[in-house]
Amino acid sequence: MTSQEDLKCINTIRFLATDAIDKAKSGHPGAPLGAAPIAYTVWKYFLKHNPSNPAWFNRDRFVLSCGHASMLLYAILHLTGYDISLDDIKNFRQWDSKTPGHPEYGQTPGVEMTTGPLGAGFATAVGMAMAEKHLSAKFNINNYDIIDHHTYVLCSDGDLMEGISSEAASIAGHLGLGKLIYLYDDNNISIEGSTNLTFTEDIRKRFEAYNFQVIGPIDGNDVEEIKKSIEEAQRDTEHPSIIICKTTIGYGSPNKAGKASSHGEPLGIDETILTKKALGWETTDTFVVPEDVREAMDYRVRGEKSEKAWEMLRKIYNAEFPELSKELNRIMSNDIGDGYKAKLEALENKECATRDASGMAINAVADDIPMLMGGSADLSPSCKTNIKSASDFSKENPAGRNIHFGIREHAMGAIANGMALHGGIIPFVSTFMMFYDYMRASVRLSALMKQRVVYVYTHDSIGLGEDGPTHQPIEQLIGMRSVPNLTVIRPCDAAETISAWNYALNNTTGPTALVLSRQKLPPVEHDRKLDLVDKGAYIIKDCDGNPDALIIATGSEVSIALTAQNSLASEGIKARVISMPSWEIFEKQSDAYKEEILPSAIKNRVSIEAGSTIGWHKYVGDKGKSIGIDHFGASAPASVLYKEFGFTAEAVINAVKANL
Amino acid sequence: MTSQEDLKCINTIRFLATDAIDKAKSGHPGAPLGAAPIAYTVWKYFLKHNPSNPAWFNRDRFVLSCGHASMLLYAILHLTGYDISLDDIKNFRQWDSKTPGHPEYGQTPGVEMTTGPLGAGFATAVGMAMAEKHLSAKFNINNYDIIDHHTYVLCSDGDLMEGISSEAASIAGHLGLGKLIYLYDDNNISIEGSTNLTFTEDIRKRFEAYNFQVIGPIDGNDVEEIKKSIEEAQRDTEHPSIIICKTTIGYGSPNKAGKASSHGEPLGIDETILTKKALGWETTDTFVVPEDVREAMDYRVRGEKSEKAWEMLRKIYNAEFPELSKELNRIMSNDIGDGYKAKLEALENKECATRDASGMAINAVADDIPMLMGGSADLSPSCKTNIKSASDFSKENPAGRNIHFGIREHAMGAIANGMALHGGIIPFVSTFMMFYDYMRASVRLSALMKQRVVYVYTHDSIGLGEDGPTHQPIEQLIGMRSVPNLTVIRPCDAAETISAWNYALNNTTGPTALVLSRQKLPPVEHDRKLDLVDKGAYIIKDCDGNPDALIIATGSEVSIALTAQNSLASEGIKARVISMPSWEIFEKQSDAYKEEILPSAIKNRVSIEAGSTIGWHKYVGDKGKSIGIDHFGASAPASVLYKEFGFTAEAVINAVKANL
Repeated sequence: MTSQEDLKCINTIRFLATDAIDKAKSGHPGAPLGAAPIAYTVWKYFLKHNPSNPAWFNRDRFVLSCGHASMLLYAILHLTGYDISLDDIKNFRQWDSKTPGHPEYGQTPGVEMTTGPLGAGFATAVGMAMAEKHLSAKFNINNYDIIDHHTYVLCSDGDLMEGISSEAASIAGHLGLGKLIYLYDDNNISIEGSTNLTFTEDIRKRFEAYNFQVIGPIDGNDVEEIKKSIEEAQRDTEHPSIIICKTTIGYGSPNKAGKASSHGEPLGIDETILTKKALGWETTDTFVVPEDVREAMDYRVRGEKSEKAWEMLRKIYNAEFPELSKELNRIMSNDIGDGYKAKLEALENKECATRDASGMAINAVADDIPMLMGGSADLSPSCKTNIKSASDFSKENPAGRNIHFGIREHAMGAIANGMALHGGIIPFVSTFMMFYDYMRASVRLSALMKQRVVYVYTHDSIGLGEDGPTHQPIEQLIGMRSVPNLTVIRPCDAAETISAWNYALNNTTGPTALVLSRQKLPPVEHDRKLDLVDKGAYIIKDCDGNPDALIIATGSEVSIALTAQNSLASEGIKARVISMPSWEIFEKQSDAYKEEILPSAIKNRVSIEAGSTIGWHKYVGDKGKSIGIDHFGASAPASVLYKEFGFTAEAVINAVKANL
Repeated sequence: MTSQEDLKCINTIRFLATDAIDKAKSGHPGAPLGAAPIAYTVWKYFLKHNPSNPAWFNRDRFVLSCGHASMLLYAILHLTGYDISLDDIKNFRQWDSKTPGHPEYGQTPGVEMTTGPLGAGFATAVGMAMAEKHLSAKFNINNYDIIDHHTYVLCSDGDLMEGISSEAASIAGHLGLGKLIYLYDDNNISIEGSTNLTFTEDIRKRFEAYNFQVIGPIDGNDVEEIKKSIEEAQRDTEHPSIIICKTTIGYGSPNKAGKASSHGEPLGIDETILTKKALGWETTDTFVVPEDVREAMDYRVRGEKSEKAWEMLRKIYNAEFPELSKELNRIMSNDIGDGYKAKLEALENKECATRDASGMAINAVADDIPMLMGGSADLSPSCKTNIKSASDFSKENPAGRNIHFGIREHAMGAIANGMALHGGIIPFVSTFMMFYDYMRASVRLSALMKQRVVYVYTHDSIGLGEDGPTHQPIEQLIGMRSVPNLTVIRPCDAAETISAWNYALNNTTGPTALVLSRQKLPPVEHDRKLDLVDKGAYIIKDCDGNPDALIIATGSEVSIALTAQNSLASEGIKARVISMPSWEIFEKQSDAYKEEILPSAIKNRVSIEAGSTIGWHKYVGDKGKSIGIDHFGASAPASVLYKEFGFTAEAVINAVKANL
């Protein structure tokens, strides 16, 4: 049953969507028409939120995993009272508007995350629910449910077909995320036609296998049924829920309902008029919001009340548990404090793999930065990401900080995004650098959403040795460097690694990727400071007088460069060695600083890095030479590979000499 | 029940593995010890193969999806009579050996594919089974089962956790691949410890949901039980099967069995001796192959008989169906013929999106190259990859050539690899270029294995417009260019697109990625030839006399360069425009050719390409300028974005003038 009042609201949403899409001559009307009753029911009858403060910490989260249905969300945000005007709606998909083609985090109030790449929303929501579970375990005490919200997700066939959703669902079920509720817009249509063409699995059985509560199939057009199902989902607090909602794509459109053609193209004005008539809409005018609908859906007063009630609770909580309350304030403002710095500074710059140095850094700061939590895709013993003083995050112990993600890199990245977006957590996640390839789409979303996520990538080159070419990164480093907003740091020793962690913890412009060696690296003699990498490149060891040549190196190749420098010096050739742990940070420096490090007059330049040479030309210039590897690796001990593939002091020396 | 004879063979395999790993001081003994009975049973009692001819077309395929168990496979290959000596085994994980750390396709006879990245083998095998199903539908007639083999996969927990295996399993079940049999080494251990930490889903239910036949759990140490289960799997010809085999990682090791520590480190000589004793092995010597085991496992005579019998059948088939037989010969030798060329040449160079030109090319050659088949991850209407004269590949119609992959890019790439590896098929697969991010790991494996797969990536830049930054490639192009062995071609008009297809079809050095526009592009006036892109870059329109400047462009930006050239000419500035559809191909040309196209004397150089500028410095040099986009895109009409982001003739003109 759907009441006339509800139906009128739903149709208002539907036609705001189709009108905006028609006006933009671009967009996806099928999902808004079909799934409007579902989203409406969540927002109208369940979602705890405050349109006047989209950042309210204890709000319910709503993720539109099928991001192409963006107009559905914008219409609801407009109607419930977010700062999105009817003009914004009319500006759908235009330059610099609040209503871009897909929901973009940071561009539109009320949009919890950027969606569009299918499955990403599904998986990111798991991170949000994990954050809620963790923080509530940490802060809720004596029935003060300070952190207490649901995470709702509207998702589509496409979301469920992508492998990332399987990874994420398996974790969500394993962790018993009872406050995570998926509403599956089951419309049987994908772009190529009926889902019978390719998607005939048993969704109920599949999600039961993941330890979900599965509800439905229900009629996705029936508000009462949706309400009952959401209540049922909420009642089961031990399992995440998925409600299978049978819908019709392009619902109401006489010529396109139930057809793939309604998915990704405007209905067109004529068909929209027919649709309005078919659904008994009172007018064929565009962008109509009936006054009673506006009143019924405006959530501002209720939203503010909701947040105020929570603030009251916070006050009493504050009086009773001042320490916890202080800590809560701190994590809500993402304040990492200063205490951790001394701990980092106290660490020794000893011979070790940079992955080990990273592990030391994590453990040094863990007590001072309690919001730091993370783990690995089943490689924490190798990636050294275990916090020794902390316990495992699990269903039974959600206050734990070490997360076992399983061998699920793609979902791991998305979950990290979800935790960062939720707030109160600075997530770090780790795997072998090669498996960045499995999670590129998630890392890109961290960067696009500018989230403070720390990616710990170890085993960063052929230095990994015997595991061979499938495990040896070649193009992954340049791959990371090419992602906008992603800061990549490849430290050369423990001191740089510690500094890199300091940078990452303070980097609020986007994610940071730490690129770390498997093999031991000698400690370079240099000034130990926390800001060692903060300019991206620096003279790690200069020559006496004006250099004849510049040798630029990163990570494990810095020590090779230093050896070459020594040999050259013994022959009277003066070479400066520059450690360049981060291109992105170096690029942000002043021209004067860049000139100081890399004087333009010196054309004899050599770079050495155990990765693709692509992009190095910029730093070595037309006369320079880059030592790198532009083919796949091989299986052999690392020392053999370094020699066979030409990563030697000799190679550097020869390159410098050839160019004198 | 396992007979003493079988057990002796199994233990020989086990200890060849542990001895080789001990000697290499590197490797993964846990899985070979635990799963040896499973692999042994497949190879001993079921696998149809010929050690003397690993390329026999109708052999059963065996994929070791858990590639880290490589020594298990090498031991079996050695014992059954492949060209792998005991010395090769002793050379495990050494430089240039036949026995690298993970199985590498092309390096070791009998290795069907490169494995190591988890889930890849699982998914690639689906492609092999699809190839078998397709070819058998095409060639088997009147009970002549010319193409008739199984595909066996040994897989691990890690394989099943990766999302790619969910995607692949869903397709395999949908397609009813009855001759695809998975043996799941269910040992309850992953690197971080018990799978209870993270992997508690119900495997039986999950695979039943995918329409699999699920067998077990059985005792993975019991050869008779394994035999019975495989027979049961074979009997169900309508569904792929998975046999859940309960095993113990590191089986037999007194101190490491059942523990994660046995996974990725050598047992060590002492523990290996203890293990040999515990399993009642007669000697503590290393690399022992008892004579009776060698006899029992040598498969050469039987293998040759097997292939000869098939050759006999082929002869009779040839006599009865000469046309089909000829066609079969052709596809087995991967001969694409010459007939398609005239069809490509006949196509018009008209104004169109290059994705449309690609669709024209596919359809032009489809009848002449029947082994060409492929499809899309639910985007064929947009990617234009439908073969109009062909039907859909489906369970009911496996002879069809249009494949609906569903929204499963990662598995799609792996399946393409599987089809190419199987032979008899040249696969092409397509999606929006952005979703290359979802399938990078699969494309890398195509490249590492040098497989002729054609990747059709459309919607290649901000030119995609309103869908916004989640759908607009920025770093994907440089990402592809950085993959060794992958040839990337970004054509500027229909003529170049047609030539690019010609190149891709003939490229047997590795995969080819075609990077295509969503938007219409004007046809450039130039010589129409099929070899237009065959040098990677060429002068598409020269100036009169010596150039003052070089303008290098690719794809949709070539026409902008040509406009700029015109304007500059009107001001008396002579600019040469170079179309550079492929860096990789250009790099393969002679220095003389490169100098001819890009004379080193001309330092005023501008590149324009709607993607990351990384790497362009190499071509524009120290004095040059690259017009590109090094930040994320935005949602707006394409024409607005081109202007806002500076992809205009004016920008090119200004860059040239600034440098005169």
